[in-house]
Amino acid sequence: MKPDQVKKLLMISVSVLLIVLVAGIFFFNRNNKVVLEGPQGEIAANETSSQAWAKFYPAHWDSYQANYANTEKPSHFAAKPYLTAIYAGFGFAKEYNEPRAHVYTIEDILAIDPARKKAGASCFTCKSTQVPEMVQKYGEQYYLMSFDEIKEEFTEAIGCLDCHDPKTMELRLSRPALIEALQRQGRDVDKISQQEMRSLVCAQCHVTYYFQPGSKKITFPWDKGVKAEQILAYYDEMKFSEWTHPDAGSGMVKPRHAEYETFQDSTHESAGLSCADCHMPYTKVGSKKISSHVWQSPLNNIEQSCTTCHRNGSDWLTRRVETIQNQVKQTQDLAGEAVVEAINELKISQVAANVDQAKLKEAQELHRQAQWYLDFVVVTNGYGFHNPTETLNNLGIAIDLAHKSAQKAREARGLK
Amino acid sequence: MKPDQVKKLLMISVSVLLIVLVAGIFFFNRNNKVVLEGPQGEIAANETSSQAWAKFYPAHWDSYQANYANTEKPSHFAAKPYLTAIYAGFGFAKEYNEPRAHVYTIEDILAIDPARKKAGASCFTCKSTQVPEMVQKYGEQYYLMSFDEIKEEFTEAIGCLDCHDPKTMELRLSRPALIEALQRQGRDVDKISQQEMRSLVCAQCHVTYYFQPGSKKITFPWDKGVKAEQILAYYDEMKFSEWTHPDAGSGMVKPRHAEYETFQDSTHESAGLSCADCHMPYTKVGSKKISSHVWQSPLNNIEQSCTTCHRNGSDWLTRRVETIQNQVKQTQDLAGEAVVEAINELKISQVAANVDQAKLKEAQELHRQAQWYLDFVVVTNGYGFHNPTETLNNLGIAIDLAHKSAQKAREARGLK
Repeated sequence: MKPDQVKKLLMISVSVLLIVLVAGIFFFNRNNKVVLEGPQGEIAANETSSQAWAKFYPAHWDSYQANYANTEKPSHFAAKPYLTAIYAGFGFAKEYNEPRAHVYTIEDILAIDPARKKAGASCFTCKSTQVPEMVQKYGEQYYLMSFDEIKEEFTEAIGCLDCHDPKTMELRLSRPALIEALQRQGRDVDKISQQEMRSLVCAQCHVTYYFQPGSKKITFPWDKGVKAEQILAYYDEMKFSEWTHPDAGSGMVKPRHAEYETFQDSTHESAGLSCADCHMPYTKVGSKKISSHVWQSPLNNIEQSCTTCHRNGSDWLTRRVETIQNQVKQTQDLAGEAVVEAINELKISQVAANVDQAKLKEAQELHRQAQWYLDFVVVTNGYGFHNPTETLNNLGIAIDLAHKSAQKAREARGLK
Repeated sequence: MKPDQVKKLLMISVSVLLIVLVAGIFFFNRNNKVVLEGPQGEIAANETSSQAWAKFYPAHWDSYQANYANTEKPSHFAAKPYLTAIYAGFGFAKEYNEPRAHVYTIEDILAIDPARKKAGASCFTCKSTQVPEMVQKYGEQYYLMSFDEIKEEFTEAIGCLDCHDPKTMELRLSRPALIEALQRQGRDVDKISQQEMRSLVCAQCHVTYYFQPGSKKITFPWDKGVKAEQILAYYDEMKFSEWTHPDAGSGMVKPRHAEYETFQDSTHESAGLSCADCHMPYTKVGSKKISSHVWQSPLNNIEQSCTTCHRNGSDWLTRRVETIQNQVKQTQDLAGEAVVEAINELKISQVAANVDQAKLKEAQELHRQAQWYLDFVVVTNGYGFHNPTETLNNLGIAIDLAHKSAQKAREARGLK
C-alpha cells in the first residue's frame, strides 16, 4: 500500500471506531436515563390524605399501593408459645400479631382486642398521618383522651405526610417523641444528614417507647443511650414499671419494636447504611428511579436490596439470613422457656409460707431484667438480623438472668 | 482549516493518544509486575528442616522468620479464671497458655508442665515437620510411645514440609488424622481444590481431636459433622469420655482449638474464603508476591488482610471485630460462671446423703453437655470471630444447660 492508502485506511478505521463509541454511549445513556419523580403541582401544606399526593407522584403512589398485597398478620403466639405467660396481666397477652402493611394501620387498630386499648388515644400515634394535626388540635390533652373518644377522627393510615414535606418532598420528622428525644441528646433536628434521615423517619415509630406516668405522653427512653442495658438503666433509675406481673409479682417494663435501637452499631449501620437502603431500595419504574415504598423484608426483593452491595447471589444471601435467624430463634426459645420457669417459681414462692421477702424481691428484680432482655429481641422484627451478635448477646444475658431468678425464687422459700 | 489540515491534525491527535495509552499500559504493568517465588533448585523429597528450604524460597523464609517476634504466651486463666474449676482433674487445669508462633512449637512443648504429657508422643503430632517421618518409622506404635521416649527425636518446629510438597511447592496434606477423616467423609483427597487446600492444610492441626481408646491414635470426631452438637452426638454414641471431673463426677469430653470446624458455614467461609485469605494474605516483597507466612491475627495487618475486600478503613474494621469479640467475651464469662455453679452443686450432691442417683446422673450429663458447648468456644482462637453468631448460639446453649445441671443437682438431693 502507498502511504496515502495507509492514511486513508487509518482514517476510516478511526472514524468507524468513533462512530461506534458515540453510538454506544448514546444507547447506554438512553437505557440508563433515570429521572427522579419530582413535584408536578401543589400539595396542601399539611395534606394528610395520601390519595391527594398520588397524582403528583404516580410512581410512588403505585409503589405505596402495592403494600395492600401484604395482608397476613399471624399471631406471634404460634411460634413463641411462651409469650402468653410472660405477657400475663398486660394487653399483649390477649393478642399479639405480626405486623402487616402500613396501609392497614387504621383498619387493624380498630379491630384489636379491647383489652389492648387501655393506653387510649396514644395508640394511634404511629398509625396515621393525622397525628401531628391531632396533637396540634388537642395539645397535650391528646395523649390523655380515651381510645373510643378519638377513634372516629382517624381515617388516614400511615402515608406520605408522615415522612415528607409536601412542598419539597424532603424527608422531615413529624412525631414529637423522636424530635424531643433527639433534642435531649443535644441534636439540632434541622441539621441532620439526608442519610441519617433515611433511618430517622422510620425511627419515629420503629422504636421502643413508654407512656409518661401522669401525662401519658409518648416518650423515648433514650437519655442514657439506645441499647437494651442503657434503656433498662433509665427505667431503673426512674423506678418505672409499666405493669406488675400477676403470677411473678415483678414490676415489668415492656420494649416495643426496637428496630432502630437494635440496628445502631450493627455491622450494616456502622458501615453507613440506613433503614431505607435495605427496606426501600431504589427501583426503576419505566424511566423513573424511585425509592421503593413497599415496606417489607429485604428478602422479598434481594435483587434490589442486598445485591446492590453483596455480589454473592440471592441464594447465598437468603441462606446467610436464614442461618442467622435460625440461630437467634433457637437461643430465643431457650430464653423464653427459662423466663417462664422463673415466673413459675415466683408464682410458688409468692404464696409460700415464711418466704424470705428480700430474696423474693431480688428474684423479681432478676425476672424483670431477664424478661426485658428477652422481650427486647422478641418484639424487634427480623429475628435478630438487624444486629445478630448484639441480639444473641442479649439473649445469652436473658437466659442467665432467668435461671438466676428461678433459683433465687426457690431460695426465697428456703431451698438452697 | 483546509480538509487536509483537518486530516493532519486528527492523525496527530490519534497518534499522541496511542502513544500515551501504550506508555501508560507499560508503566502500569511495570509497577504491578508481580512474580511468584518459584523453585530455584532441588529440595530433598522429605526435607524436614525448613532451613534447607530457605535458600530456594528466601522471601518466604524471611516471612517465616518474622514469626520469632511473636513471643508472648499469657495464661488463659488470667482472663478466664473459671477455667481451672472446669478443667479440674485434667492436664489443662495445670497450665493453659495462649499459643505463640509456630516456630516455637518444639521449645514450648518441651517446657510444658509434666502433668500435661500423659498423652505421650501424640502431643508432638502438631508440633513438628518430622511427624510423618516418625509415623513411618514407628507405625501405629508412634501414638503409644511415651513423651519422654520420643522427645529427643523431635528437633524441627512447624515448617515448610507440613503443608508443601518440596518438589512442586504445591499444598499437600501430611497428617494422617485429617486424611482419614476426609476419606471417611467419602472425599478423594487428591481432588481437592487449591482454595479448599488453603484451609485444609491448617485443618491438619487447627481442629478438635481425640485419642482413640486403646490405640491412642489421633482421630477427628467428624463422622456426624464438624459442628459442636454433631461432635458431641458422635462422642455420646460411642459413650466416650476423656476424663471424669473429680468434683462433679461427670464424664467429660474436651474440645481443642476448633478453628476449622467453627469457621465452616460462617459468613466468610460460605462466601468462599479460606483460612489463608485472612491469615496469610498476599504481600509484595520487592517485586515478588508471596503469601505471608507470619501466622497471626488479621488485625495485626488489616491493610493486607481485611481491606482486600472491605473498603471501610482499618479503624472501622478493628472496631467491628472488637465489638463482636467483646460481646462473645461477655456471654462466655456468663457461661463460665454458670458451669462453675453446676460443678459446685454437683460437688455437694455427690457426697450428700440419700441422693437420687438417677437425677444426679442427669445433672452430670447436663454438665458434660454445658461444658462441651462452652469449652468449644473457649479453646477456639479469635473470641468467636471465626463464626460470631454460631459461637454466641453455642454459648447461649451452654448457659442454659449449665443452670439446668445445677438445678438438677439440687433436685437430686431433695430440693425442688
